[in-house]
Amino acid sequence: MFQRVTIIGLGLIGGSIGLALRKAEAAREVVGYDMGKGVCDRARQIGAISQASTDLADAVRNAELVILATPVRTISHLFQQLAPLLTPGTVVTDVASTKAQIIGWAEEFLPHHVAFVGGHPMAGKEISGVEAADATLFYKRIYCVTPTAHTQPVAIQKVSTLAEIIGARIRLLDAHDHDRQVAAISHLPFLASVALVNTVGSEPDWSDTAILASTGFRDASRLAEGNSVMYRDICLTNTDAITHRLDEYIAELNSLRDQLVEHDPTIIEKFLQSQQTRRQWQEMHKELS
Amino acid sequence: MFQRVTIIGLGLIGGSIGLALRKAEAAREVVGYDMGKGVCDRARQIGAISQASTDLADAVRNAELVILATPVRTISHLFQQLAPLLTPGTVVTDVASTKAQIIGWAEEFLPHHVAFVGGHPMAGKEISGVEAADATLFYKRIYCVTPTAHTQPVAIQKVSTLAEIIGARIRLLDAHDHDRQVAAISHLPFLASVALVNTVGSEPDWSDTAILASTGFRDASRLAEGNSVMYRDICLTNTDAITHRLDEYIAELNSLRDQLVEHDPTIIEKFLQSQQTRRQWQEMHKELS
Repeated sequence: MFQRVTIIGLGLIGGSIGLALRKAEAAREVVGYDMGKGVCDRARQIGAISQASTDLADAVRNAELVILATPVRTISHLFQQLAPLLTPGTVVTDVASTKAQIIGWAEEFLPHHVAFVGGHPMAGKEISGVEAADATLFYKRIYCVTPTAHTQPVAIQKVSTLAEIIGARIRLLDAHDHDRQVAAISHLPFLASVALVNTVGSEPDWSDTAILASTGFRDASRLAEGNSVMYRDICLTNTDAITHRLDEYIAELNSLRDQLVEHDPTIIEKFLQSQQTRRQWQEMHKELS
Repeated sequence: MFQRVTIIGLGLIGGSIGLALRKAEAAREVVGYDMGKGVCDRARQIGAISQASTDLADAVRNAELVILATPVRTISHLFQQLAPLLTPGTVVTDVASTKAQIIGWAEEFLPHHVAFVGGHPMAGKEISGVEAADATLFYKRIYCVTPTAHTQPVAIQKVSTLAEIIGARIRLLDAHDHDRQVAAISHLPFLASVALVNTVGSEPDWSDTAILASTGFRDASRLAEGNSVMYRDICLTNTDAITHRLDEYIAELNSLRDQLVEHDPTIIEKFLQSQQTRRQWQEMHKELS
């Protein structure tokens, strides 16, 4: 049971954490802070927070846990604003998709009397905003926590408790490993989806082509719907890992292209290989089927 | 109401057409033919056909409509086998994803006393086989029909009736336009998905990375599960259109890569562009949401 949890940024993830905490009656107070017009009101209406605050100092005063759920680059500014406001003993965490950069900012800006650990729940939807919040979003999902040699155990413990309450499964890993792995299974798929939609959408016959697009296109293009500010910040803060994966992806596509123009029937081996990889992945993740 | 409909190839599409026809009680007989071990038995068990035939001549004798629902390249052989067996007046159609090549084979191999028109229902699933068949698969989906200057009206009429019975919406278009458009919204997305899975799956840390992969990866990789023989044949018969789209896709990815390495925040414009394109597409296809 938490006393006072403050969520800064009430989008899909922040809102869903609030809903899950309140549904579990696991916090005496869930305070929300969001600079978006009317966002706090909507969060309170759907029950994602117990009270809203329009003042950052009020919002975090005496908080047991402060969860930053904003786009990555906003977190740098927030750390600087929060530094003089945080109560000693408060644990601070975030839910962003790049971790090494955020840990660097935390070490640079946060005072020593607060404990920080980075976190990243592996869950999302293509739609964003508090209206899309869902108390069950994290159920059975992996919740990455990326401690460093300097992380205080209390921070790991509080975030692990949070993850447990919202139904997720904790995975402790190194921030650089996290960033490289998430570049592969989240950031690269997003860029692949964006490029796909822009490629087919910019053809002169797109208005006719669009009529034929069905469930295959729907699924392949879904990630392109994601929050653009969030993904811009991810690209600007996890650049090396994403570039590395993107280069490999382009090389793989060029290799498929070579087989295609040569009418090489052994292209089927690549199809079988991807089928096998995906099926093995599905075996690991029966909760997602 | 059809008298005798013969479906050759009882996979996902052939099986689903059979189920839909029989559910609508729209054919006196639905005869099934499939060379796969036990496939006809399973098709009969689930009600996709009223009777099975192990002899191609028996299967198509006196058929009003013969539907070829096999991988693309098999259709070339089937046309040659069927040519001496088809009863005058029978309408022949197919459901494959490339049309120009199939029309060429039909003109080369089929006798003049049967009427052929190419068709392609825009529906599918990542799982294949008659076990995945679904009577509602085509409901509200587009059913492409690609007549030529030589197509007999009776063929268009019979296939339009079929489409109507199974709940689909007919769209008449030129075979080359079809092939170019389907390369964009079906064949390219498949290759993009295969390359994505193979790129991330071949990394040495894939077994760790796979643990983090969640719904985003699930959707982006779904098409890679598709029937490999079917997609191999598509690649071998719609090569030019797919290569053209793939080249554009690789160029688009390289352009994203340039912005990425330059830490260019205006990369967000590409994200917003794809979001807008996808939302416009969704407005057109409310039945898929």
